[in-house]
Amino acid sequence: MAREKPKKNPAGQIFSVRGFKAAGIGAGIKRNGAKDLALILSDSPATVAGVFTKSAVRAAPVLLDIERIKRGTSRGVVVNSGNANACTGRRGLKDAEAIVTFAEKALGLKNGELLVASTGVIGVPLPAEKIRSSLPALFQNLKPSGWTDAAEAIRTTDAFPKIAFAKKRIPGGRTISLLGMAKGAGMICPSMATMLAFFATDAPLTAASLKKALVTSVEKSFNRITVDNDTSTNDTVLIFANGLAGGSPLKPGESGYAVFSKLLDELSLRLSHMIVKDGEGATRFIEVEVFGAKSRKDAELAARKIAASFLVKTAFFGADPNWGRIMAALGSSGADFRQDRVDIYFDGIKVVKDGMDAGKEKQAARAIKKKEVRLRVDLKRGKSSSLKLWTSDLSYDYVRINSSYRS
Amino acid sequence: MAREKPKKNPAGQIFSVRGFKAAGIGAGIKRNGAKDLALILSDSPATVAGVFTKSAVRAAPVLLDIERIKRGTSRGVVVNSGNANACTGRRGLKDAEAIVTFAEKALGLKNGELLVASTGVIGVPLPAEKIRSSLPALFQNLKPSGWTDAAEAIRTTDAFPKIAFAKKRIPGGRTISLLGMAKGAGMICPSMATMLAFFATDAPLTAASLKKALVTSVEKSFNRITVDNDTSTNDTVLIFANGLAGGSPLKPGESGYAVFSKLLDELSLRLSHMIVKDGEGATRFIEVEVFGAKSRKDAELAARKIAASFLVKTAFFGADPNWGRIMAALGSSGADFRQDRVDIYFDGIKVVKDGMDAGKEKQAARAIKKKEVRLRVDLKRGKSSSLKLWTSDLSYDYVRINSSYRS
Repeated sequence: MAREKPKKNPAGQIFSVRGFKAAGIGAGIKRNGAKDLALILSDSPATVAGVFTKSAVRAAPVLLDIERIKRGTSRGVVVNSGNANACTGRRGLKDAEAIVTFAEKALGLKNGELLVASTGVIGVPLPAEKIRSSLPALFQNLKPSGWTDAAEAIRTTDAFPKIAFAKKRIPGGRTISLLGMAKGAGMICPSMATMLAFFATDAPLTAASLKKALVTSVEKSFNRITVDNDTSTNDTVLIFANGLAGGSPLKPGESGYAVFSKLLDELSLRLSHMIVKDGEGATRFIEVEVFGAKSRKDAELAARKIAASFLVKTAFFGADPNWGRIMAALGSSGADFRQDRVDIYFDGIKVVKDGMDAGKEKQAARAIKKKEVRLRVDLKRGKSSSLKLWTSDLSYDYVRINSSYRS
Repeated sequence: MAREKPKKNPAGQIFSVRGFKAAGIGAGIKRNGAKDLALILSDSPATVAGVFTKSAVRAAPVLLDIERIKRGTSRGVVVNSGNANACTGRRGLKDAEAIVTFAEKALGLKNGELLVASTGVIGVPLPAEKIRSSLPALFQNLKPSGWTDAAEAIRTTDAFPKIAFAKKRIPGGRTISLLGMAKGAGMICPSMATMLAFFATDAPLTAASLKKALVTSVEKSFNRITVDNDTSTNDTVLIFANGLAGGSPLKPGESGYAVFSKLLDELSLRLSHMIVKDGEGATRFIEVEVFGAKSRKDAELAARKIAASFLVKTAFFGADPNWGRIMAALGSSGADFRQDRVDIYFDGIKVVKDGMDAGKEKQAARAIKKKEVRLRVDLKRGKSSSLKLWTSDLSYDYVRINSSYRS
């Protein structure tokens, strides 16, 4: 499964959302000539919401978007891969601004109506002139079915493009569409990742409602995955809602909003799982669930420490049901528990009972050989609190990819 | 340098400390027949101090020692490798107790005079009978020069045994000797490691003074190294002081204590650096120094995040002076700084100035090819606070060693 195109996202399937166009082309930012410049454009002003990296080192496009998104509406976003435009100082900000300003003028938009996102190598000035001179070709490629091109163009070390789409009827007879695309394969960590994700919907929502729905969904999906515990300078999730499905805005507390919000949850989860399955060098997809914690914070401390452990991740790569490393990770997690109460399950097989070997190593060894493994840890410390995270294993290929990234 | 025997610890050099004996033999705990059982014994009761893992999952020998060390004196410690006796419940405690009790009787010691330490695989019952039946052979091998055998016997994945020795005159004409040995190569993380270290000295100290000196030294050495961010269930550092150098106890604040304390600092640092150089799969030894931090806590947050980063460590393995990953790690460290003020140095070469490329990549690429690299990060946020950590790179061999540890 890992690093293969998921079945739910077959090549050739054509997605579209009323009133949106997308495009992706090669602008020569990547050395290998692959697509590296994308545009998502709404025909009419859309409400917009965004979530950005919590890192203290923020790329120029992030700094720019944080300002621009305050207006609450936008017409779309220009995205490049191959260069993060991070740690590039004032020049980086000027470059980002010059590109969107040029695009706004060429498209007849108002100043401030476009956002920008970048991903790739840090600390190298953006080839702004190359990008600017490629914009006319990018505009010519804009089409309602341009999403797969756009999803291609935002890839860095991603093995496959990531798109998810869903339609749903909401009360009142309207049907809403939601499309999401994402990139990310390394520098993936809880509290976002080197990941970009963009959503477009024709559902009608105010900027405040849209933000509420986005923050809730991101918290349960993109903020719950980890490949390598490294948080990026460029993490960005944007959602555009142009309201073309018609009717009055969907409000929190109402059933239409609930339908939309659930749809966004689902697509965020699907995209975030695609990112983990495409984790650099990943051979296994691992769900880590901690339950029976005293508090949600304890569950989170425990789950994050397990999912971050080099030793747990290499054991998964070697298909070694080495639960001792999970106990060791738990021990230093800071979570409140007693070691002689812990139970651990590999795909439903109890391998640890009350902190000790439950004698099920053979069954566990079979379970861990699967491409997707569910690891459940019961702290038996409380009833209410549980938390799920998703991670990948740590393989030779992770080291290969990351020890030669720039060369 | 890495995974080779350091020059300061040549094979064949014979160490000894008045009134101490040591031994190391094979008891069949390890499958390959290598040495796996060690004993350190003081001819007379020695004052003792210890520092143990902060993990909430503590191995049986750790739990036993925490109780036993309260008496303040001890005759020595029985150590086995190949099995951690962790996550083994009441049986584990009984096994540990049975072994030291048997040894105490055989050696004519009082109940409670021996300590115990274990390292190896977690969650497998200790082969207590095998160990007990090997004790007579262990006792027969006891000799003043037995330290290299003992250091051999406490190895797990260590590529070389780790011993350090020093002698020094203290005011009043006495000469004190201090010998230290350690093991550790993986599950090595700030706040100790899967590491064991044992010190023996003939200096006279009370248990309280000894504890004070030990805690201070450990904080600056063993607690400042990381290979893989995983904290072990078995971390133990013990020091025995038999006072045979003569004279009254060395007291904090006095010059004799200062000499002893400095000696202990030096040996702790040497042993902890040996552990990093022997880091599983390590090809480079990296000193991470953060200075100009607003507070010591900020310096520590920043240094620990950099030293823990998969991406920084794989870049070092690939000899890629990819400072963007260091900036990204800094950004999510939680330390207080401004990205446009940060300077970064590789072996004295300024590669980042005010958060941006300083145009010295070629020189940096040469510097990073060395086996030992000094990485310095100046946050320019304050004057007083700095902190050093030591870590290794992340290589294919780390993955190989840890994905096949038990098979």
